[in-house]
Amino acid sequence: MVRLKHLRLDVLKPHHPSVIEFSKILAEQGECRVRVMVLEMDEKTETLEVEIEGSNLDFDQIQSAISAIGASLHSIDAVEVDSAKST
Amino acid sequence: MVRLKHLRLDVLKPHHPSVIEFSKILAEQGECRVRVMVLEMDEKTETLEVEIEGSNLDFDQIQSAISAIGASLHSIDAVEVDSAKST
Amino acid sequence: MVRLKHLRLDVLKPHHPSVIEFSKILAEQGECRVRVMVLEMDEKTETLEVEIEGSNLDFDQIQSAISAIGASLHSIDAVEVDSAKST
Amino acid sequence: MVRLKHLRLDVLKPHHPSVIEFSKILAEQGECRVRVMVLEMDEKTETLEVEIEGSNLDFDQIQSAISAIGASLHSIDAVEVDSAKST
Amino acid sequence: MVRLKHLRLDVLKPHHPSVIEFSKILAEQGECRVRVMVLEMDEKTETLEVEIEGSNLDFDQIQSAISAIGASLHSIDAVEVDSAKST
Amino acid sequence: MVRLKHLRLDVLKPHHPSVIEFSKILAEQGECRVRVMVLEMDEKTETLEVEIEGSNLDFDQIQSAISAIGASLHSIDAVEVDSAKST
Amino acid sequence: MVRLKHLRLDVLKPHHPSVIEFSKILAEQGECRVRVMVLEMDEKTETLEVEIEGSNLDFDQIQSAISAIGASLHSIDAVEVDSAKST
Repeated sequence: MVRLKHLRLDVLKPHHPSVIEFSKILAEQGECRVRVMVLEMDEKTETLEVEIEGSNLDFDQIQSAISAIGASLHSIDAVEVDSAKST
Repeated sequence: MVRLKHLRLDVLKPHHPSVIEFSKILAEQGECRVRVMVLEMDEKTETLEVEIEGSNLDFDQIQSAISAIGASLHSIDAVEVDSAKST
Repeated sequence: MVRLKHLRLDVLKPHHPSVIEFSKILAEQGECRVRVMVLEMDEKTETLEVEIEGSNLDFDQIQSAISAIGASLHSIDAVEVDSAKST
Repeated sequence: MVRLKHLRLDVLKPHHPSVIEFSKILAEQGECRVRVMVLEMDEKTETLEVEIEGSNLDFDQIQSAISAIGASLHSIDAVEVDSAKST
Repeated sequence: MVRLKHLRLDVLKPHHPSVIEFSKILAEQGECRVRVMVLEMDEKTETLEVEIEGSNLDFDQIQSAISAIGASLHSIDAVEVDSAKST
Repeated sequence: MVRLKHLRLDVLKPHHPSVIEFSKILAEQGECRVRVMVLEMDEKTETLEVEIEGSNLDFDQIQSAISAIGASLHSIDAVEVDSAKST
Repeated sequence: MVRLKHLRLDVLKPHHPSVIEFSKILAEQGECRVRVMVLEMDEKTETLEVEIEGSNLDFDQIQSAISAIGASLHSIDAVEVDSAKST
């Protein structure tokens, strides 16, 4: 089975919910660790670098959560997948 | 459960309380490690980079402590949350 | 026996399948870990740096998978092979 | 209990006592490790970067020792405190 | 006994055999790990940085293999040898 | 007890004794590890960066040894002392 | 006893013997690890950075070996000696 282990996303988010709320909502989409760096703040939006690490991430669910918040996924910058039996 | 593990904040503080007092007050808001770097000193204020690490930080309490001191939270620059069962 | 352990490839890919689907298809070609970084996005294509790590990679199969997707392998940038008995 | 674990200080010192004497006097203020780098030497003074690490530093005592020597504490550049139960 | 443990070579290779074939041929010259980076690609040739690591490399055999392929060894850039009894 | 653990010195030395002899003489002043880098060579002198590490260095003895050789200690660039009970 | 543990030498060598032969000859002067980097190649000579590591190097023997080969020791760039009882 191929598992998605790591994602680095470029996301544009309105000021609400806060970065902390946004990070927590992403982390609720499965067992994972979410790191968010605020790269730029504009009047109405924030540009974020989002890194998500887990043993088996569900990208569709993550993408839906981003949209549901009113944020938009600009690009997927890096992906790591694994098909090794034991890691 | 989603836990807040790490925060990097940009804070503007009056000269009093001192950086040491300020760091201790933040550390009293829960079990954590607080690192403060003084980035700039002006006549009346200091610009600080504040990093807080813990197993389950309470951001609202941290934010209240910052306000109570008379300092202001300029921005949340980085956030790390975790929903993995064992970390 | 000589085993292929690591590859770094420069790949040009159409927007579909997505980087995540593309990474998963590569990882299905054998037990391995695949890391993809999106270096550039153009109107119709994406330039990727693809790193594949495994204990015994099959390059022909990887190359076929890349072609089958409609992507093209621009260059092989780095290779690591191993003939040591225990590694 | 909140403990002060690390300090980085900017200190201006007359040539006497020597950097070695100065470092030893600081280290006598409690169980700690003191690292001093001489950043600049002028005719009458030396600018020092002082790092002090310990499990529970007493800043007031350190500050008094600096003054007693005839040196002056220009600024506190970094602070680390800890309220975690086991570190 | 003095053993050759590491070599870094600058090699110019025609496009055939491929970098992967070339790396495998080098690795067949003894128990070792071979890393090849493609530094430059021209119309007819590729400039490679070749690193070979093993417990007891045979340089003459490596050099012969490079020539037999139709590639040329431009320079030996780094060498590591060892005469310690246990390493 | 406060122990001197590390020193970084800037030393000017005549060509004789050699850097190796000079390093050995310093190491004879107590149990320690001495690293010397030759930063500059002039017609009659060499500028050295000298690092000395030990569990309890005796600076006066080191300084006397430097003078006895005919070299001169230009500056003490870094000092590390320790008063912790177990290190 | 003071032991010489590490040397970094700047050596000028004719093209023969080769860098590999030269490295092996140095390693035969005692139990050690020798790393040679070719910094520059001229028509008749090669400039080498030579690093030698061992538990108790004999510099005179190393220097004689360099001369016997027809190479010349330009400078000793770094030295490490040790007088600690157990390292």
